[in-house]
Amino acid sequence: MSSTAGLVIPCKAAVAWEAGKPLVIQQVEVAPPQTMEVRIKVKYTSLCHTDLYFWEAKGQTPLFPRIFGHEAAGIVESVGEGVTDLQIGDHVLPVFTGECGDCKHCKSEESNMCNLLRINTDRGVMLNDGKSRFSINGTPINHFVGTSTFSEYTVIHSGCLAKINPLAPMDKVCILSCGISTGLGATLNVAKPKRGSSIAIFGLGAVGLAAAEGARIAGASRIIGIDRSPKRFKEAEKFGITEFVNSEDHDRPIQEVIAEMTNGGVDRSVECTGNIDCMIAAFECVHDGWGVAVLVGVPSKDAVFMTKPINMLNERTLKGTFFGNYKPRTDLPSVVDMYMNKELELDKFITHRLPFSEINKAFDYMLKGEGLRCIISMEE
Amino acid sequence: MSSTAGLVIPCKAAVAWEAGKPLVIQQVEVAPPQTMEVRIKVKYTSLCHTDLYFWEAKGQTPLFPRIFGHEAAGIVESVGEGVTDLQIGDHVLPVFTGECGDCKHCKSEESNMCNLLRINTDRGVMLNDGKSRFSINGTPINHFVGTSTFSEYTVIHSGCLAKINPLAPMDKVCILSCGISTGLGATLNVAKPKRGSSIAIFGLGAVGLAAAEGARIAGASRIIGIDRSPKRFKEAEKFGITEFVNSEDHDRPIQEVIAEMTNGGVDRSVECTGNIDCMIAAFECVHDGWGVAVLVGVPSKDAVFMTKPINMLNERTLKGTFFGNYKPRTDLPSVVDMYMNKELELDKFITHRLPFSEINKAFDYMLKGEGLRCIISMEE
Repeated sequence: MSSTAGLVIPCKAAVAWEAGKPLVIQQVEVAPPQTMEVRIKVKYTSLCHTDLYFWEAKGQTPLFPRIFGHEAAGIVESVGEGVTDLQIGDHVLPVFTGECGDCKHCKSEESNMCNLLRINTDRGVMLNDGKSRFSINGTPINHFVGTSTFSEYTVIHSGCLAKINPLAPMDKVCILSCGISTGLGATLNVAKPKRGSSIAIFGLGAVGLAAAEGARIAGASRIIGIDRSPKRFKEAEKFGITEFVNSEDHDRPIQEVIAEMTNGGVDRSVECTGNIDCMIAAFECVHDGWGVAVLVGVPSKDAVFMTKPINMLNERTLKGTFFGNYKPRTDLPSVVDMYMNKELELDKFITHRLPFSEINKAFDYMLKGEGLRCIISMEE
Repeated sequence: MSSTAGLVIPCKAAVAWEAGKPLVIQQVEVAPPQTMEVRIKVKYTSLCHTDLYFWEAKGQTPLFPRIFGHEAAGIVESVGEGVTDLQIGDHVLPVFTGECGDCKHCKSEESNMCNLLRINTDRGVMLNDGKSRFSINGTPINHFVGTSTFSEYTVIHSGCLAKINPLAPMDKVCILSCGISTGLGATLNVAKPKRGSSIAIFGLGAVGLAAAEGARIAGASRIIGIDRSPKRFKEAEKFGITEFVNSEDHDRPIQEVIAEMTNGGVDRSVECTGNIDCMIAAFECVHDGWGVAVLVGVPSKDAVFMTKPINMLNERTLKGTFFGNYKPRTDLPSVVDMYMNKELELDKFITHRLPFSEINKAFDYMLKGEGLRCIISMEE
């Protein structure tokens, strides 16, 4: 038993009170975990575009006050009733989507879209009782995607926590809890490029570069990066990208440019922008006969994917992926081990570091498109 | 050497002189095979929708006079220069698409879309010299998809001939040279349903029922057949179809009906109609997380496939297929063996038989939608 188990923990959290306004670091009370829940001490967290997107709340119903944050690493402080696979002191990665282990998705070898714990961005409370575990002077504060890691302590469903190697440096592997695994898995688990093959990556943000890292690990020999921001090309050189295409440089569809560069099309493509034209281009730029296009980026709700059916009939494959097809609890520990075995490079994704007190700067970096991942140390 | 090798062979053929007009059975001269070509004696042929489509010539540039026919079985009469893998007397299935063995598609494990011998419906001549091997009193008669099996003898590129088990009954296995393999392979090679899984088949013509036969062989436990013609449902019972959906009976999208029947969607679907709405329905009716939709039917040139990207992002897969992903020369012999081993049932596809002299009746059956396959015996 930890000395705080069963007690409300007062601690610091960065609270978003209004859309687009700086977070306020202030004291919150964190209630003990209930049935199948775990309370963790967050050690490091990082900022991902999804936090920014829901903080800006331009496209959805705003839900405030709220504690954002979902890329993180931490240590189990206490566990609620029924939790048997996690113990106090375990090192964990919280994940915005979960793995209950019992539903048809969890039982399927192919899916990671757990029925019970699938991402829900509209919910600000815990599943168990429909209430929040965060409060300030009795006022509940909303959770975010079941993780809310911009707090020194947070309560998470045990199905959304991956137990990892305790020797793994948490200030590095915390980025595996969302974006990096999403891109990496899109390539390694879904696109599956063969050694010596060609691949096109659309969008060279953190997720796209993680897809490129997957292609490097898989041994692809041509890794073509497509973006409209040339400043990203310099950074992308570290990620094994062999050729760059600036989509703004061409006045014809980019799929034609890529098909010409590759004598008929790439073997694989991974789309990480969510722009509907890029999604269509990513599909149409793969080679007939064997090409596989993988969609990662989430487009606007009104977008419609359109293509000539012959593009499919000519033996192309189109696949979507969610969180890189990783089952959070089952698969993430082995991704952490890939880093420990020096197979996977993570350091190059970490471009900034900040103490928790300066978390708002991380939002500024992301708004300016500066860097890839900013690690926020909760203890500084 | 056969006694006719090197000589022009006069024989009977069914010649199409005009779009939509009855074929005329008359004497044609069949020139000897040139480099990489083979002349075969056709034993049995059957009629497939593609013959009918190009004979009607409603959607394409008409090319007449022409000898149609591409589903057949025959025996090698003589071989041209450079042909080493076929000998006089070999039993063969002609195929409308070929396998040169040297191009990047033939060298790919995944593709069967040979660059050299891929189907070309506009060409009426042989590749070698751009000329026809058929003539009547010196007037050349056009070939059709490199096979032209509505003739007692025909000349075919050796890359378009699959050498089969000589014990196989040609009056049965001739139907493997196009439609049945197309549907069967769409299921077995591309959709790959697991034992005990569910599958929806759109369109219960010969190709769709061959897809159902593939599902039966794979051990799918729910095989849902969708058609708008109830008279097909009776025939389809022989093919292991467990449930029927008449798309005309519902005033809402059929994908919703199927999702409701299957608690979220089928594991696999195979689309064999070419109707664009069915193609979209086939994709949208598969289960999120693992569903795979396979498109077989060829739509009109103006059709556009449209869907919400979220349908892909929720881990559905969309694949197109061509000739069931079978490489003609490499793979068809083993499909014939599946029949010989009683794994594959073919007899139920054969609903009519006719002597060559009555070939126009086969067109009538197909125009009326009667039956599945009509076998035409060349020697009667």
